[in-house]
Amino acid sequence: MLRSPDRVTLADIAARAGVSLATASRALSDSYGVSPGTRDRVRSVADQLSFVVSPEASRLAGGRTGRVAVVVPHLSRWFFAEMLAGVEEVLREAGIDLLLYNVDTLDHRRHFFERLPARRKVDAVVVLAFPVTEEERQRLDLLGVGIVAAGGQSARYPFVCIDDRAAGAQAMDHLLSLGHERIAMIAAETPLAPGWPAVNRRSLAYHEALAAAGIPADPALVRDGDWGGEEGAAAMADLLASGPPPTAVYAHSDEVALGALRTLRREGLRVPEDVSVIGIDDHPLAALSDLTTVHQGVREQGRTAGQMVLGLISQDPTAARAAVVPTRLVVRGTTGPPRRG
Amino acid sequence: MLRSPDRVTLADIAARAGVSLATASRALSDSYGVSPGTRDRVRSVADQLSFVVSPEASRLAGGRTGRVAVVVPHLSRWFFAEMLAGVEEVLREAGIDLLLYNVDTLDHRRHFFERLPARRKVDAVVVLAFPVTEEERQRLDLLGVGIVAAGGQSARYPFVCIDDRAAGAQAMDHLLSLGHERIAMIAAETPLAPGWPAVNRRSLAYHEALAAAGIPADPALVRDGDWGGEEGAAAMADLLASGPPPTAVYAHSDEVALGALRTLRREGLRVPEDVSVIGIDDHPLAALSDLTTVHQGVREQGRTAGQMVLGLISQDPTAARAAVVPTRLVVRGTTGPPRRG
Repeated sequence: MLRSPDRVTLADIAARAGVSLATASRALSDSYGVSPGTRDRVRSVADQLSFVVSPEASRLAGGRTGRVAVVVPHLSRWFFAEMLAGVEEVLREAGIDLLLYNVDTLDHRRHFFERLPARRKVDAVVVLAFPVTEEERQRLDLLGVGIVAAGGQSARYPFVCIDDRAAGAQAMDHLLSLGHERIAMIAAETPLAPGWPAVNRRSLAYHEALAAAGIPADPALVRDGDWGGEEGAAAMADLLASGPPPTAVYAHSDEVALGALRTLRREGLRVPEDVSVIGIDDHPLAALSDLTTVHQGVREQGRTAGQMVLGLISQDPTAARAAVVPTRLVVRGTTGPPRRG
Repeated sequence: MLRSPDRVTLADIAARAGVSLATASRALSDSYGVSPGTRDRVRSVADQLSFVVSPEASRLAGGRTGRVAVVVPHLSRWFFAEMLAGVEEVLREAGIDLLLYNVDTLDHRRHFFERLPARRKVDAVVVLAFPVTEEERQRLDLLGVGIVAAGGQSARYPFVCIDDRAAGAQAMDHLLSLGHERIAMIAAETPLAPGWPAVNRRSLAYHEALAAAGIPADPALVRDGDWGGEEGAAAMADLLASGPPPTAVYAHSDEVALGALRTLRREGLRVPEDVSVIGIDDHPLAALSDLTTVHQGVREQGRTAGQMVLGLISQDPTAARAAVVPTRLVVRGTTGPPRRG
């Protein structure tokens, strides 16, 4: 009986092959600790259970395809496009083709991972800046190819990212060193990306920095939203409507910060005389807006992810399995000392 | 004798097959007016002369690959990423994979087109927002697959674009209707993209609008640069240094306009009281900067290009061969009447 790929789980394959979940996972991801016989049996079962979309897809453990899949959640946002450009650069130089999958809604994301076992058309998959859920991880295992996580930590796959806690600390330390005490935070969450860690490390940095400075945290100064500029503008408007304005705003991203700047400008507040604003990213338009921010090397993260992919494909045992790209404060015109009185 | 693909030209193939250049081109692009025998002979010669990178590449006129190549000049710029997202959306829904090639330097571009005949791994190619040169056109013909030009007019391939002259006219008419006469233009050229038409239609719109309003054009008010924000900022600084400031600035893109805004702000000039600024694009950050602009549906152009690709692949004779997506003025806070006196 052939089942549709939408229904095949790692558990199905483990049951059919008569092995444990862990063994099935190891066999499919080519990890150590599985005998060749078991590995072949598991792969053969996976092959039988999976939908075959093309003749190429039937060669499970066969030769290289010369292609790598890159899965992106929000292609048209600068951060993701810039990171994709870094991955593409390294793959292109190595003569490897890049298959692009944009998964910008939960539906697209579900669809991608459900069809994944049918996509045995690539030598590796790069997951760009979103954490995979346990279920998605199982689908990835079915592929039996290398995985690299770019733009976020991963316990399981080679990854490249920044230290979000350190980036947040750089932003907060700058505001505190200028003398600010009444500091608001506009936090960005990603409702479309299940699997994010429960503790947002950019938020953690805010609370740690305040605590270290002996300043009690005021929940009235914290707003949560999505990553976009309009969300930042709305959060800033809400902050201004709720009480006396803060003297400084720490935004989780430059786009959020740019939105906050628009609200402040429209309300007639001067930046930085009345309110300082800092973001994280160093988006190309941050420089055009004179926005103080914490720079992260996004292209560099993409390139590093590309190199990790090459290491996986060539099965280079010396290839890096983790890289944390440093961030740095970039002071521009939107931060200054707090107003007096 | 097998020659390297770097050296194979359409002329080589025509000579070897004993046909004219035009016939060779038609045979490879599957146009009308070529007998099946001639077509097969030309394709067979092309096949022999071309470097074969993979077993798949040897099936020249064979089955579908289920893949489409998209060639992008500046992946990390919003305009290109947004258009790519539109193409990806349509291809994904059709179950077609997207191979991505970023050609952000002249070298990369040359390399891509030189290796093109070896890339017979796709059913079609989308050229995103750059015009192809005659030499590149010949390389594309060697592929023997459908081509779609997105983001620019093409005499030869199905295309989707905006009417740049109409977009420029919308911007200029807005400034003129507010009463501006001393209007500067910051034009954007693309030195990295050979093949652009000699007449920039956004510049043409400037001169036509001034002429129609009976205002003599002042060459001292025109600056030429690249598409980036820093270039816009530099051009604005140069304009201010060269004489009395204009009362309005027409920029060829939002990023150029945002750069101009920064310069004006830094020089202490108020927008729009002292100087009005308008761009073209409706970049997502334009709304955050309150920038008046001419909106173009970039995602829509990408989707339309994707649909043209599907039409080519399915050889649908009713598929659209040209689409011009309308633009519209979006008035925000950076334009107003000219200052008095």
